[in-house]
Amino acid sequence: MILKKIRSEGLAHLSYLVGSDGRAAVIDPRRDCQVYLDIAEEEGLRITEILETHRNEDYITGSRELASMTGARIRHGELDFGYGETIREGEEIELGQALLRALSTPGHTPESMSYALVDRSSGPEVIGVFTGDALFVGETGRTDLLGHDRIEELASMLFFSLHDKIVPLGPGAIIYPAHGAGSACGGNISNREESTIGLELSQNRMLKIADKERFVAIKREEKIEKPYYFETMEDINLKGQPVLGRLPQPPPLSPREFHSMADGRVVLDIRKPTAFASAHIAGSTSIPLEVMASYVGWVLGYDRPLLLVLDENGDIIEVVRELIRVGYDRIDGYLRDGLEGWTKAGLPVSSFPVIDPHDLRRRLTDGDIFVLDVRMNKEWEAGHIDGAKHIFVGYLEEHLDEVPRDRPVAVMCSSGLRGSLGAGLLKKHGRRNVLNVLGGMGGWAKAGFPVTDQ
Amino acid sequence: MILKKIRSEGLAHLSYLVGSDGRAAVIDPRRDCQVYLDIAEEEGLRITEILETHRNEDYITGSRELASMTGARIRHGELDFGYGETIREGEEIELGQALLRALSTPGHTPESMSYALVDRSSGPEVIGVFTGDALFVGETGRTDLLGHDRIEELASMLFFSLHDKIVPLGPGAIIYPAHGAGSACGGNISNREESTIGLELSQNRMLKIADKERFVAIKREEKIEKPYYFETMEDINLKGQPVLGRLPQPPPLSPREFHSMADGRVVLDIRKPTAFASAHIAGSTSIPLEVMASYVGWVLGYDRPLLLVLDENGDIIEVVRELIRVGYDRIDGYLRDGLEGWTKAGLPVSSFPVIDPHDLRRRLTDGDIFVLDVRMNKEWEAGHIDGAKHIFVGYLEEHLDEVPRDRPVAVMCSSGLRGSLGAGLLKKHGRRNVLNVLGGMGGWAKAGFPVTDQ
Amino acid sequence: MILKKIRSEGLAHLSYLVGSDGRAAVIDPRRDCQVYLDIAEEEGLRITEILETHRNEDYITGSRELASMTGARIRHGELDFGYGETIREGEEIELGQALLRALSTPGHTPESMSYALVDRSSGPEVIGVFTGDALFVGETGRTDLLGHDRIEELASMLFFSLHDKIVPLGPGAIIYPAHGAGSACGGNISNREESTIGLELSQNRMLKIADKERFVAIKREEKIEKPYYFETMEDINLKGQPVLGRLPQPPPLSPREFHSMADGRVVLDIRKPTAFASAHIAGSTSIPLEVMASYVGWVLGYDRPLLLVLDENGDIIEVVRELIRVGYDRIDGYLRDGLEGWTKAGLPVSSFPVIDPHDLRRRLTDGDIFVLDVRMNKEWEAGHIDGAKHIFVGYLEEHLDEVPRDRPVAVMCSSGLRGSLGAGLLKKHGRRNVLNVLGGMGGWAKAGFPVTDQ
Amino acid sequence: MILKKIRSEGLAHLSYLVGSDGRAAVIDPRRDCQVYLDIAEEEGLRITEILETHRNEDYITGSRELASMTGARIRHGELDFGYGETIREGEEIELGQALLRALSTPGHTPESMSYALVDRSSGPEVIGVFTGDALFVGETGRTDLLGHDRIEELASMLFFSLHDKIVPLGPGAIIYPAHGAGSACGGNISNREESTIGLELSQNRMLKIADKERFVAIKREEKIEKPYYFETMEDINLKGQPVLGRLPQPPPLSPREFHSMADGRVVLDIRKPTAFASAHIAGSTSIPLEVMASYVGWVLGYDRPLLLVLDENGDIIEVVRELIRVGYDRIDGYLRDGLEGWTKAGLPVSSFPVIDPHDLRRRLTDGDIFVLDVRMNKEWEAGHIDGAKHIFVGYLEEHLDEVPRDRPVAVMCSSGLRGSLGAGLLKKHGRRNVLNVLGGMGGWAKAGFPVTDQ
Repeated sequence: MILKKIRSEGLAHLSYLVGSDGRAAVIDPRRDCQVYLDIAEEEGLRITEILETHRNEDYITGSRELASMTGARIRHGELDFGYGETIREGEEIELGQALLRALSTPGHTPESMSYALVDRSSGPEVIGVFTGDALFVGETGRTDLLGHDRIEELASMLFFSLHDKIVPLGPGAIIYPAHGAGSACGGNISNREESTIGLELSQNRMLKIADKERFVAIKREEKIEKPYYFETMEDINLKGQPVLGRLPQPPPLSPREFHSMADGRVVLDIRKPTAFASAHIAGSTSIPLEVMASYVGWVLGYDRPLLLVLDENGDIIEVVRELIRVGYDRIDGYLRDGLEGWTKAGLPVSSFPVIDPHDLRRRLTDGDIFVLDVRMNKEWEAGHIDGAKHIFVGYLEEHLDEVPRDRPVAVMCSSGLRGSLGAGLLKKHGRRNVLNVLGGMGGWAKAGFPVTDQ
Repeated sequence: MILKKIRSEGLAHLSYLVGSDGRAAVIDPRRDCQVYLDIAEEEGLRITEILETHRNEDYITGSRELASMTGARIRHGELDFGYGETIREGEEIELGQALLRALSTPGHTPESMSYALVDRSSGPEVIGVFTGDALFVGETGRTDLLGHDRIEELASMLFFSLHDKIVPLGPGAIIYPAHGAGSACGGNISNREESTIGLELSQNRMLKIADKERFVAIKREEKIEKPYYFETMEDINLKGQPVLGRLPQPPPLSPREFHSMADGRVVLDIRKPTAFASAHIAGSTSIPLEVMASYVGWVLGYDRPLLLVLDENGDIIEVVRELIRVGYDRIDGYLRDGLEGWTKAGLPVSSFPVIDPHDLRRRLTDGDIFVLDVRMNKEWEAGHIDGAKHIFVGYLEEHLDEVPRDRPVAVMCSSGLRGSLGAGLLKKHGRRNVLNVLGGMGGWAKAGFPVTDQ
Repeated sequence: MILKKIRSEGLAHLSYLVGSDGRAAVIDPRRDCQVYLDIAEEEGLRITEILETHRNEDYITGSRELASMTGARIRHGELDFGYGETIREGEEIELGQALLRALSTPGHTPESMSYALVDRSSGPEVIGVFTGDALFVGETGRTDLLGHDRIEELASMLFFSLHDKIVPLGPGAIIYPAHGAGSACGGNISNREESTIGLELSQNRMLKIADKERFVAIKREEKIEKPYYFETMEDINLKGQPVLGRLPQPPPLSPREFHSMADGRVVLDIRKPTAFASAHIAGSTSIPLEVMASYVGWVLGYDRPLLLVLDENGDIIEVVRELIRVGYDRIDGYLRDGLEGWTKAGLPVSSFPVIDPHDLRRRLTDGDIFVLDVRMNKEWEAGHIDGAKHIFVGYLEEHLDEVPRDRPVAVMCSSGLRGSLGAGLLKKHGRRNVLNVLGGMGGWAKAGFPVTDQ
Repeated sequence: MILKKIRSEGLAHLSYLVGSDGRAAVIDPRRDCQVYLDIAEEEGLRITEILETHRNEDYITGSRELASMTGARIRHGELDFGYGETIREGEEIELGQALLRALSTPGHTPESMSYALVDRSSGPEVIGVFTGDALFVGETGRTDLLGHDRIEELASMLFFSLHDKIVPLGPGAIIYPAHGAGSACGGNISNREESTIGLELSQNRMLKIADKERFVAIKREEKIEKPYYFETMEDINLKGQPVLGRLPQPPPLSPREFHSMADGRVVLDIRKPTAFASAHIAGSTSIPLEVMASYVGWVLGYDRPLLLVLDENGDIIEVVRELIRVGYDRIDGYLRDGLEGWTKAGLPVSSFPVIDPHDLRRRLTDGDIFVLDVRMNKEWEAGHIDGAKHIFVGYLEEHLDEVPRDRPVAVMCSSGLRGSLGAGLLKKHGRRNVLNVLGGMGGWAKAGFPVTDQ
């Protein structure tokens, strides 16, 4: 039996290829799906099955793309999908020695499925389970995506799915979730990727709760931001994803071409926060590559094509992959030779300073600076600078009037990455005196400066 | 200025990407054309021009494929092409510092073009010329492709193209031809890839001929086999090549599936001659990978899809590339785990012996063996075994009745590669007593055995 | 926490890199150890610890090689090692959030250690255990390596190590063994790579045995061949492995050079069984690459340097890796252009036929053929052809007189790979009438022919 | 015949592997020489000859390294080398069909050799020549390396070497020089890589000069900076290069480790100018990767080990390669997770602003800024800003007192890369008010601002 995990960095997405005796299934494929064919070819497998654990909300599923390349059959839970077929509790898929058994595990979404895995060459026991977004390492799936009023219903469902469907597979069963740490689909996913039901019963804060009411109550209290783009993804994944056929290959644009095309398009700069602060094209949006996949959907709409600014010409492919995974298929080009090309063409740049925690501390003492904390709720609640103002970066553009114009604004996140996004947004909206705090709250705390959770 | 040569092994095809200041042209692209986009991306270039030197006959040009990926404009000589635009003598294409100037150089075909290259950053001199199939290193293009009765006309044209158009570019100009050694488009292309007009004037047997009549006379005498598939390629390249969009990815087939699908399809075995001789699927055609691109068009039609036998599961991609370059787009699968999978499934194999020159010599002395030489004309004429029978492997199936049934037949080529093809064809047609001479005439001569050119 | 498994195909060896917060340990490194540095660099880790689970017998451990590259500290169980330091039960190694705790788990060898893994960011529970050769997926380590008279002692130790040390880590703990399927270190290792203590308690034939006496009795009955080379490996791994500094890079040799150097060296041909049967250099030993790592130590001594025959020039690196892992450091060259180069140089070849199960069946009915089964004991006992003679291929050269000279000898293994080795050895020792059964007993059974286990 | 060019980016160094019939020579190998073995292996060649064109001054030659790996013989011109053997005018080296003929071509250095190449399969003509640093595309080698008083002698020698040795090889001969554009070994090397003697006679400013006196006069006037490190390289290349055996693999260091190790070591930051300006470790030296190989020897001594700051953990290998090529073998580590790791650890950073040409222009008008032009002589002479002060960046630390302390200093180069080096040096020496001009004179001119060559 062959079992391969495919990790897609930006979204912390995990998909799997499982096969035996020449046939294979892919669970929750991503959209740039050549990787599955490459593995299959290497192993002498033919991909005949595509299984979805649920209607994904954080990325465009690659099911139809992969089906168009392989002729494989697509199966998913029961919902009004515009493609594929419904699989039901108890149905089994045989792939030589490997056997996948469908489990209905609603909760994260009402139609969520898990797939228990049996290796018939070792015995009839379930050796692992593809849990989708029901159970992660250290976390359970969020239940707020259908709105606050359905949390109770979904959280109850999830509790039963976990305890009546997944836990009974046995403590030794390995879990294969759809996401690792960093995903927006769960609040506190562990950065370790391997776990078992037994380990989760000991270590998973939510799975340890034996009382349904308490479980539901905690879920009800969870305040996880929901990116705006989730609805677009949900919609696309329900109707059926557009088939790309081939990855877009945006061309390099000369600084002059880029300049003239910028009007009517969004200029997305994915360089490091230090580089962006130092010099960027006026009006561009900073989303450093490290957080791009997770944050692009918060701040950019789908109505205008993108133009990209990156460090080097050859870096474009990985960026394109991450963008098409979240539905940004229209990428009209990138700036040739990056910002260096731009400046060598004599074009003007914009900039703002960065600040380190030591300087920030001094200026706070002096009283001449305003700290804007753009992290998520749970991060803010875990500890922040006394006197800072909290506006999550995804909501910043709607709350600009809460940011003072008469003082320097130091934008704070956990590291400086989202700080760059926040500071860039303020700049774009005409604020002149902004700074990005390098190192963010991480650096602040490591430098030994005070933090409050009040 | 950036100038990259892209070598495609099987057909000994050379294409080029030339660019400067963000724009690039590709000369004679191959059909699996992602390679050009990868180079362009690495160099920060946008492919805006595709130039054909002539209507290719030995492979499917990638012009339309590449245009579909880049939006580039296609240009070619004047002929009734179903796509692209005509470029004429003297027209210039500017790519930043690089400049390409069209030269009409008919001869190999009536509409053949060459493209002289100027690097304007160094001066106005022509620094090189893309010669297509007009001038190779050590050879000139064949002029017999339109039939024997047009050789005189075309050879005359070629003589003038060479001496009035290409030679005047100066001895220091570098030549960039469309083929290297091993191509069927020229008789004796050198295995060295770099040359200049000056060097060719000294070393090229044909270019050294100053007398047109003698040049034409030699061309008239040239007997180069013309693969059957050339006409299909010419036709496709005239009308416009089908756009693939993506490389076919044939699936692995279990031995049983393979067996049941073989009917109505062609089983092509590309393993080494030793492996094929030892054990192969009855009825399969042996074309070792080393000669596949050049010989597949001689012996396989386009009417039936292919099934492939190779050594390892992962080798398929390179084979697919070579096949689609010559128009075999329908590849329905390959045998999973190769012949080892087949034999482990308990399925029967066929075989024939190989023989080395020493054994062949002994058996010739004993008089019990018939030598069938399947090489090309020019090879046969350069030297063969006294008493051998010559039938070029591409013509073998039409001359089976000239091969005796009452004696062992030792199939001879230059190395054993085409011998495998020949022996396999005889086997397929029911001959039971065939052998492949390993080492071929190369080994025979090195072993010190007699050769005649009578 | 980062945990990477490094799989080395030929020996089915598994090693691991585990790290956190900039520091990493490698467990049971292989000798070509650049791979660990590459992973460490990618992850920003510094390798500071090397842990051995036991004195390996089937390969040369890479501990000293890796220590010479990184300055890492080497630790192993208590034995008179000529290098490194002893680690004892309960000692802990901290690598940021990751913690490794040493467990004394004797049995496979007296000094065997396991290392329990804790991810302190999730909790104090043991999440996995590096079991070395104590516990595999589906199997336990062999206990016969110190001789038959110590099996009882070692098997008892192993029983307690498993049940008192490893099982108590909990059913949810993941096991990370030192070998996968195909290793000579365990009789029936599963071809699945992931498992847990819970799963093994359900599925592992040996771990399910709750009674020590029965466990020991079965171990006492196990007849697993012990490769001759194990003693050399044990000796080297005790004293300290020679540091290579760099992988050997044997040069290509012209056929004439190869021919003249063959005297005093061993010619090892790693091509496929079909290719070897068809044509090989007289006197060469066939060990197809697929079984090379496991079988080379059975048939080749360490006293003479090797010369290699492979399919293509570029394939040498992977072969060199596999050879140095088992101590064949002296590789004086390989045949340029493989056997094709040899035959094109006019040099003679030797050959023998292959046979498929159908033909074998016919000839057995005719009564003119002797079947020599060269598989391992356990394979023979599981089923063979009635009337066949069993000599394990590793013992064949000492039992040549049991192979008849007056009849064709069909050499049988499970697939044809070791059959090639066996047939080649017979050839080398002057037997003229040998055949290799393609597909082996696998093909025979699939073809529906009778098998007996008597 | 096989001829491969190996390009080493930073130093714009070109080396060559030429081979035929199983044997190969490498001309002017670089020190990280595995690349030659990889090519040789791919092509079935054994490297038996290493040829040096001259005692290199800009990098450590890989001759001894490669010889230690292959056993190849090293040859060079006549000088008191501590290794290898002398080759003399007219000596020939046969490599199957390829033949190399030694030409004594003194001038760049007194012992310089060129190697004419004959492809005996095409004819006896010289097809190309490895010219070392005698003749480049568009330039000739500098003749000032032995001091101003020997220029006349060496320039005369070079004139004769060019016209009596190289030009007579014929206009069609291809030139294979040791450097491309960007090298410090010639003043104006073209950025095109392919040329011929014929083309150079038309296009090469220096080769076109038919009068020796004028040639020498121009050479005498050439003012090319000579990096300080050249003498170290020359010395090492004379005595014999230390053999590394293996590339150094510096470990990642935590911010705290890095901080504590920085004392007594040099901190080299190779990030982009924008990133460095925005935030860097106080006291570090900025040499952006793009100019690192060429400029490191100007500003860093060999007495202290290096610590590196780069963007990502995995980028280290390419940097190490470039550093060891110029003799910086002691690299004690790099900052884990780059500057992001540093700031997340709460450590302080230093910074300075960048400025674009438009802002610079405004501030020049306002009169409050001092422009320091750190480019090379020839660049300065070709055009600069009126009123700017010229100090070449390599001499900056010796002329600090010429830089005013009372005004902001805008450091200007051609693009911003060396400006980062210059601004960083000023910062390191305590200047507080420095700026780097992004886009440099390139951007200034493109923006349409005035330039003077007075």
